[in-house]
Amino acid sequence: MSNVQGIAASSGIAIAKVYQLASPDLSFEKVSIDNPDVEIERLDKALEISKQELEKIKAHTKENIGDEHAEIFSAHLLVLSDPELINPIKDKIKAENVIAETALEETANMFIDMFKNMDNAYMRERAADIHDVTKRVMAHLLGVTFPDPALINEEVIVIANDLTPSDTAQLNRDFVKGFATDIGGRTSHSAIMARSLEIPAVVGTKEITASVKKDDTIIVDGNAGIVIINPSEEEIAEYRKKQEAFAEMKQEWAKLKDEPTFSEDGEQVELAANIGTPDDVEGVLANGGEGIGLYRTEFLYMGKSQLPTEEEQFTAYKSVLEQMEGKPVVVRTLDIGGDKELNYLDLPEELNPFLGFRAIRFCLENENVFRPQLRALLRASVYGNLKIMFPMIATLEEFRKAKAILMDEKESLLKEGFEVSNDIEVGIMVEIPSTAVIAKQFAKEVDFFSIGTNDLIQYTMAADRMNEQVSYLYQPYNPAILNLIHTVIEAAHSEDKWVGMCGEMAGDSIAIPILLGLGLDEFSMSATSILPARTQLRKLSKEKMVAYKDKILSMGTAEEVVEFIKEKTE
Amino acid sequence: MSNVQGIAASSGIAIAKVYQLASPDLSFEKVSIDNPDVEIERLDKALEISKQELEKIKAHTKENIGDEHAEIFSAHLLVLSDPELINPIKDKIKAENVIAETALEETANMFIDMFKNMDNAYMRERAADIHDVTKRVMAHLLGVTFPDPALINEEVIVIANDLTPSDTAQLNRDFVKGFATDIGGRTSHSAIMARSLEIPAVVGTKEITASVKKDDTIIVDGNAGIVIINPSEEEIAEYRKKQEAFAEMKQEWAKLKDEPTFSEDGEQVELAANIGTPDDVEGVLANGGEGIGLYRTEFLYMGKSQLPTEEEQFTAYKSVLEQMEGKPVVVRTLDIGGDKELNYLDLPEELNPFLGFRAIRFCLENENVFRPQLRALLRASVYGNLKIMFPMIATLEEFRKAKAILMDEKESLLKEGFEVSNDIEVGIMVEIPSTAVIAKQFAKEVDFFSIGTNDLIQYTMAADRMNEQVSYLYQPYNPAILNLIHTVIEAAHSEDKWVGMCGEMAGDSIAIPILLGLGLDEFSMSATSILPARTQLRKLSKEKMVAYKDKILSMGTAEEVVEFIKEKTE
Repeated sequence: MSNVQGIAASSGIAIAKVYQLASPDLSFEKVSIDNPDVEIERLDKALEISKQELEKIKAHTKENIGDEHAEIFSAHLLVLSDPELINPIKDKIKAENVIAETALEETANMFIDMFKNMDNAYMRERAADIHDVTKRVMAHLLGVTFPDPALINEEVIVIANDLTPSDTAQLNRDFVKGFATDIGGRTSHSAIMARSLEIPAVVGTKEITASVKKDDTIIVDGNAGIVIINPSEEEIAEYRKKQEAFAEMKQEWAKLKDEPTFSEDGEQVELAANIGTPDDVEGVLANGGEGIGLYRTEFLYMGKSQLPTEEEQFTAYKSVLEQMEGKPVVVRTLDIGGDKELNYLDLPEELNPFLGFRAIRFCLENENVFRPQLRALLRASVYGNLKIMFPMIATLEEFRKAKAILMDEKESLLKEGFEVSNDIEVGIMVEIPSTAVIAKQFAKEVDFFSIGTNDLIQYTMAADRMNEQVSYLYQPYNPAILNLIHTVIEAAHSEDKWVGMCGEMAGDSIAIPILLGLGLDEFSMSATSILPARTQLRKLSKEKMVAYKDKILSMGTAEEVVEFIKEKTE
Repeated sequence: MSNVQGIAASSGIAIAKVYQLASPDLSFEKVSIDNPDVEIERLDKALEISKQELEKIKAHTKENIGDEHAEIFSAHLLVLSDPELINPIKDKIKAENVIAETALEETANMFIDMFKNMDNAYMRERAADIHDVTKRVMAHLLGVTFPDPALINEEVIVIANDLTPSDTAQLNRDFVKGFATDIGGRTSHSAIMARSLEIPAVVGTKEITASVKKDDTIIVDGNAGIVIINPSEEEIAEYRKKQEAFAEMKQEWAKLKDEPTFSEDGEQVELAANIGTPDDVEGVLANGGEGIGLYRTEFLYMGKSQLPTEEEQFTAYKSVLEQMEGKPVVVRTLDIGGDKELNYLDLPEELNPFLGFRAIRFCLENENVFRPQLRALLRASVYGNLKIMFPMIATLEEFRKAKAILMDEKESLLKEGFEVSNDIEVGIMVEIPSTAVIAKQFAKEVDFFSIGTNDLIQYTMAADRMNEQVSYLYQPYNPAILNLIHTVIEAAHSEDKWVGMCGEMAGDSIAIPILLGLGLDEFSMSATSILPARTQLRKLSKEKMVAYKDKILSMGTAEEVVEFIKEKTE
């Protein structure tokens, strides 16, 4: 019986047996052979089984999680059918009289090394795909079981060093009750997935894989960030109670599903959700979302071999707007570049991609990409309450240019006989410090602001949030960040415009009281955070939080802010 | 006769014949040979001549330009003596019966490819060294002249696609009257070198190498950013006049060498210089610098195989302080990482190095590097007017930690019997937006601020200034930047602290009036910019510029600001 401390990544409590998601032993002896045809046949069989498995996992993922997650497996399937990979393996078997394992390993490694060294995120991703997929084929060649979390059929808690996107995409909520990992943080991919699947999770434990054995029972406390290994009867009983209490709390939350969001003293705010695809809308409505605060349109462009057509985009936007039945839907135009690449667009390699040619910077230079998206949005506008926002706006000129292109397309569409709404608000993401600093100047020209805290924090602190060595500088509560947010809100309100926030910070329980006090109008977050946030907001007095504002804004460090908020909201 | 437009990189006017700094034709036929010994002898001879040339260029550079620039050639000489490069070439000649040219080219390319693909700036630099040096050896093998700008012995204007650090290091001011390049901008290496050498230069012309022929006479107008090819008699006469006027202006400037700096209405500011080594102090004093606003200590750490000792550092700091005879000297502690790497420190590879583990972030984690520098500074403090500043401070905690280590070392030194000044001011660079935003909180704890605009602009606009595709966002006059500078100055003055600026912006003629109005106390720039700045400031009314402040700060775009300033200061 022992405890392992980690980072609380997704709330809730799970109690179950462990499922160790570890790589199987794929070692083998390199022997020579006489009959290459036998080896080629073995290879073909292993490829065939692997493809069947991937098809199954893909279908399963599509149904249980969503289209965009299933796309990973389309990429994997493409690898297995790629003659440029498969033929050299077969050639090697024939030319060198080696077993299929040797030929597979050596050929795959050659491609992996080549792609890895290409110093291009897209090619490195291809290297990762080849790595993932050939491991599966190798397992079949060796007759070793390859762990497929998608095929788990009893209640378990998944334990892993880390969960790849392809791992998390396969987790079945009916059986996977929780997970715990050695690495990762609150904003790592696996943590975000856990919250979206509502699976309790503890990440960044450093030692969980080394601490558990097969058949251990463990408790994952995703509220406290603790994993208890082989708990005593008393502990199990205690945590069952906590689990029930949490379930009750969730039921309490659920009662607020159709309620508007008021503070204790009756001030209303809007709680909206961030989504990636039309499939996500169902979860937003189920969790009482009052709107979509951020529709990331990148998924429409990913996992494809070419740009999505205007028609494909129109269909997606229309679907979201219709499902939301007149509730506000804020769509962000394409935010590509930086760490997000598209294979069919020839984006430049950059020394500092986060400070590079991305989002609106890219779109303004590539109108052939930008205009079809704007047309699709404008055409969809008549099906609901559409608001459009541009990402990564750093200067007024950029906003003016982007808006001019939008207006130009509106005019064209009207001439072509399409209907376009006249009530589309046009706003910007505030995620670059320059824009926050002169928000007053922007507020005269935009219809609304949405503060993108993930990037705003990163740029304001000059610290890449993905870089572990400087992640201590990713400080949402740093008074500098709070002052910038305050500047933006004051600027907007002085021009009667509204301000939303669509970064992780908007759903954070320490940040919510501060943001209420600063006057934020719309909080956009993961759908599953909405009801807890609504519950929290109903207990907060806006007047009180407004009264603390000046004190908080003049503090020196994030630590002071957190202590103060904890004390005042206890 | 035609004109080519470029970027005015270094002021002044030059009229002379062109010197085309182009790579010679190094192609050859790969033939087999019977007697490898002959080839090895040819190689040894080519190596020997190359070494002699490099020694000559190194000595020349050391004498005419400075120690740190000569270091490039030490690196090149090391390459030519490296058995790991030379032996494989000789082995290849013997094993494959090829001529020395073939063996040299193939071996060099192999190493260059290997180092290039290592995805590490230091190794890529090594690849560039090998490339530079083997070209020289190849030229000697082929009996082709290799251009050595160091050996130019008649008056010329150098024309090149770009000038590498090793090229500019060799330019002899007595003969090289100016230069013009196809690529580069105002802050590129060659432009900064041109200003420091006071050679007129136009960069970024895109087409100058294609536009001139051997024996052409050209005019480089480094004030207007124009190159005139084969000018008419009238044009030459006109530009001779301009040249004289510029020379007269320089004489006027020179009269102000020992004057303090006052605005037209009698408000005093300090004009200081940015330096890299003790050798640079002479130029500062010759140009009337009232202090050193930024002593970059990185050169002490570069071109070496290990960290500089405390003693080496002490000697350098003492030398600068003594030469400045009591005038203020602001020393910045080690700013390493980002784009600046050291081979003997194992810095991590990063996806976004500008948002990474650098400067104070690195020093706080590596006290074995940080403490000896602080000790050397403290010991040198009794030899002059020392002020210490920490780079890349993003949070108050970082400043407090750095200062605590400094105080700790001071105590140790006193115990060890050393003398340490009690009047050392301890300040910070303001180059991260967070620090500018809450400058008020910092002003209570620091003794001074020095605004590092190069980085501050880059982070505030979220645009890598080295990335050509987003370089349009590097906007010193953007109202967001000006508002941040204003915030910093107001904060400092409310606590009776002073504010300097040590980015390129401090010496910029459009920025100077604005900065005067915002109340900047110290302007630190290239030494050669000091006298023009002093001349400009004497004609500016601070009262008037203060009166324009609110108007400028509420403008929307950089363009508006520039237009307004040009109109008001005409």
